[in-house]
Amino acid sequence: MPFRTNTVARRIQWGECDPAGIVYYPRYFEMFDGSTTAMFSTATGLSKYEMFQTFAFAGYPMVDTRARFMIPCRFGDDVTIETTMTEAKRSSFYITHQLKKGGALAVECFETRVWVGRDPAESDPTKIKSQPIPAEVLAKLSVS
Amino acid sequence: MPFRTNTVARRIQWGECDPAGIVYYPRYFEMFDGSTTAMFSTATGLSKYEMFQTFAFAGYPMVDTRARFMIPCRFGDDVTIETTMTEAKRSSFYITHQLKKGGALAVECFETRVWVGRDPAESDPTKIKSQPIPAEVLAKLSVS
Amino acid sequence: MPFRTNTVARRIQWGECDPAGIVYYPRYFEMFDGSTTAMFSTATGLSKYEMFQTFAFAGYPMVDTRARFMIPCRFGDDVTIETTMTEAKRSSFYITHQLKKGGALAVECFETRVWVGRDPAESDPTKIKSQPIPAEVLAKLSVS
Amino acid sequence: MPFRTNTVARRIQWGECDPAGIVYYPRYFEMFDGSTTAMFSTATGLSKYEMFQTFAFAGYPMVDTRARFMIPCRFGDDVTIETTMTEAKRSSFYITHQLKKGGALAVECFETRVWVGRDPAESDPTKIKSQPIPAEVLAKLSVS
Repeated sequence: MPFRTNTVARRIQWGECDPAGIVYYPRYFEMFDGSTTAMFSTATGLSKYEMFQTFAFAGYPMVDTRARFMIPCRFGDDVTIETTMTEAKRSSFYITHQLKKGGALAVECFETRVWVGRDPAESDPTKIKSQPIPAEVLAKLSVS
Repeated sequence: MPFRTNTVARRIQWGECDPAGIVYYPRYFEMFDGSTTAMFSTATGLSKYEMFQTFAFAGYPMVDTRARFMIPCRFGDDVTIETTMTEAKRSSFYITHQLKKGGALAVECFETRVWVGRDPAESDPTKIKSQPIPAEVLAKLSVS
Repeated sequence: MPFRTNTVARRIQWGECDPAGIVYYPRYFEMFDGSTTAMFSTATGLSKYEMFQTFAFAGYPMVDTRARFMIPCRFGDDVTIETTMTEAKRSSFYITHQLKKGGALAVECFETRVWVGRDPAESDPTKIKSQPIPAEVLAKLSVS
Repeated sequence: MPFRTNTVARRIQWGECDPAGIVYYPRYFEMFDGSTTAMFSTATGLSKYEMFQTFAFAGYPMVDTRARFMIPCRFGDDVTIETTMTEAKRSSFYITHQLKKGGALAVECFETRVWVGRDPAESDPTKIKSQPIPAEVLAKLSVS
């Protein structure tokens, strides 16, 4: 079941850059987290908040992520981020982001996340547990 | 000389919100800083980096800013930020941002900034000095 | 009822600075928010999480804040932040922060916050309401 | 040549957490970047700014980083970050961070960075090139 690639375009902001004049690398992870959400929102037509209401879930926390930085980006650069779910298991799933600048691959990121729900009787926010990714969501992410 | 209002639309991100589920207020200042730059970029057709090259300046650091928070915004909210230069002196200028949610004023912010250049012979980044806002920039910001 | 000043010492981080080599001003608001919490934690001996459990409250969201930036700070600078509650009403309170570098006042910030609780029957995070600051907290903040 | 482990203790801040009440994972990368700098600063007795002056270098940008998230941390948690250089080549080096909460490994991060200088004749901040890590720095990081 191949999945659609979702593309986000953005301009690098002054406040995302460090004294070297280039993106402070933790900001890339913020961009990629937003890109993962944008992928789900594009597919479902729902914001993350609306997804919480619709699917009774509690997010898709990160289990493992890795990024490679090949070309530095500076403020004012216009980049695109291409985001693809590469594999979905029962509740775990894998995402790849390719951030491109002028068509060249500048940063690549790999994510392993898990779809979680929260026990309504549980007030401790650290007590979450995995639940299956809804079939409806996977269907909407898939290339038809 | 009245100035144009520039409007930016954005969706509040999960990562901009705190454990209360609403925007962590320092993130609003990041949004407003980006909105000030967007105002200049819309007027001049230049990114901030290109403005650095074109106008031989070094930014518009903040001198004084104040924000009032009236309606909380949460992740997934679609908001607009209306940004207007309210007054320009020789090198100082005043900006107002109105962040609206569903048409209602949620956050209002006031900025006093100064247009600065950097002495090319000076390597200390904290040694900057004010210089006049280019007439060309003010003309492009103005309502014709 | 005068209140104690709480002082936090910190080193400015590379990632808090922008391409001009100085602190990106929204980061100061993060520092000041942490300093307000540090003031309460020093007085009560509780972390913010423990305060949530102990006082059945939901935070002290910002109503209005203003900062003046007088001396730029760069990465590696060692600064202190002196935080004082200047006035407490029933549920609103006022805080002043003075960030000093080498003894000189570099940034000054004023905050108006409100002590809030959350209706347990309410799931919408934006529905919060003010409640009185606990007398015990005010007593511990006060100069004896 | 084994290297010393540098340990930093910190309390998780409210503003580092997301609506799930736990650390927003990009903030961990900010903590780890600060921990890498703290390791060099402890060894050399110099802030990063002072290192720029002393070693005529321009930073140690990230080439590749990976993190695994095992136990969520929430605001108010007191954690330690143990940082070790695991290997140094001519200009590349490898760092491991172990963030522990109550003694248990909560987050683990691996970094590949490169020590870079900047060509003084080059004004483009994205034009940097690797240079050897100073022997003096490596000596101070090493277990004697």
